[in-house]
Amino acid sequence: MTVVLKLGGSVITEKGEPETVDDDALAAAADAVAASDDDLVVVHGGGSFGHHHAAQFGVSTTDGTHDVAGVRAIHGAMKRLNGAVVAALTDRGVPAVPVHPLSAASRDADGSLDLPTDQVRTLLAEEFVPVLHGDLVAHRGEGASVLSGDELVVALAPAVDADRVGVCSTVPGVLDDDGAVVDRIDSFGEVASVLGGSDATDVSGGMAGKIRALLALDSPASVFGPDALDGFLAGATPGTTVVGEGHE
Amino acid sequence: MTVVLKLGGSVITEKGEPETVDDDALAAAADAVAASDDDLVVVHGGGSFGHHHAAQFGVSTTDGTHDVAGVRAIHGAMKRLNGAVVAALTDRGVPAVPVHPLSAASRDADGSLDLPTDQVRTLLAEEFVPVLHGDLVAHRGEGASVLSGDELVVALAPAVDADRVGVCSTVPGVLDDDGAVVDRIDSFGEVASVLGGSDATDVSGGMAGKIRALLALDSPASVFGPDALDGFLAGATPGTTVVGEGHE
Repeated sequence: MTVVLKLGGSVITEKGEPETVDDDALAAAADAVAASDDDLVVVHGGGSFGHHHAAQFGVSTTDGTHDVAGVRAIHGAMKRLNGAVVAALTDRGVPAVPVHPLSAASRDADGSLDLPTDQVRTLLAEEFVPVLHGDLVAHRGEGASVLSGDELVVALAPAVDADRVGVCSTVPGVLDDDGAVVDRIDSFGEVASVLGGSDATDVSGGMAGKIRALLALDSPASVFGPDALDGFLAGATPGTTVVGEGHE
Repeated sequence: MTVVLKLGGSVITEKGEPETVDDDALAAAADAVAASDDDLVVVHGGGSFGHHHAAQFGVSTTDGTHDVAGVRAIHGAMKRLNGAVVAALTDRGVPAVPVHPLSAASRDADGSLDLPTDQVRTLLAEEFVPVLHGDLVAHRGEGASVLSGDELVVALAPAVDADRVGVCSTVPGVLDDDGAVVDRIDSFGEVASVLGGSDATDVSGGMAGKIRALLALDSPASVFGPDALDGFLAGATPGTTVVGEGHE
């Protein structure tokens, strides 16, 4: 079983404190990953490591920078967080290997992402656990723009022929108007009202963008909170299950 | 003018001292790069950062490891050296961006290297200076094996349509039997005797492997010592010029 697991940046960092890991939350997530027998690809977000630097330099997924100080600040912070995640995993016997997207990916002038994935497939085949992260990416005409963890999940799932996709964020799933978790989503129309409709700029972090992207995958996806990570990795489908039109 | 420049690991590190940068040598090299107007791709070797870890874990370009402690030691050391090189360059106003080959490349079961290069081309087009380094690489059937700086140079030069290739090592060029620098090499046969012939295992570091690889390029290459780096980047052809059959 091949699983692509996204750990939200706000799950593993103290989002209000610049560059601060939430040690307890990271330890719990790493314990859950260490207990899994699946072939895992892990992607984590930026949380308090990436976002404030990105805001400072005015960088988003569409607006880039040519300022190398911005590249150093954002990419450097994300590599430090990735180092903490990889260390938490290897400390528990997980053969985690860092994969830094800025070193591999690029965007064309239209902003379309090209993410080569032979390295990830080869690492998986050799029984390593690739650990990617939200990052910057070379962007034709823009310098370097933001590459979100959610974009990585959507690019990786088909590339590794994922059986399941898990998105662990700080909420227990997609919530309806009454605050209850929506069990299953088959189309965006079902939930457009509770998600606030489509927001094209909402590529990093927002739930509407996440659900739209997950609906386009062949793999079923689960959106759940940190407490449900153990269960998801044990085979359960906690939170909201997103099954798009691409699914058989 | 697009130039691929290799800085030998033994040029920028104290080769006898584990994980020690030769600060003066790195500063001189960074000064030379900062004075260049060319579109540069920089590749550096491992020197005292990569080689002793690679030896400790028994890893070469053909023999890999599945030991994630080895991956952490070797890749981690190379990222630290790369950080020092990138910092020396950005301190001098060079818009240097790290590119970690383990995050991008892979080898198939025959050991053939696949190095995606759209990210390097996009960084160049956006006027950044990509800085790559000898590293590990995911290797089908072997785990992770060594990827040498020389292999990177040979893969990058055609990918970026390099006008010139420079290999800066600790010797002033290819030396003949009398210790004099050979001015020009057009075929391996001319120098096989002084280079000790072909040694297929000599992919990282040895001069015979370097020359064989450089002869296969379309771009003319110069092999020279640290004192000649300024001159090379100013347009001169110091040391030994290697012009292979691929050249017009």
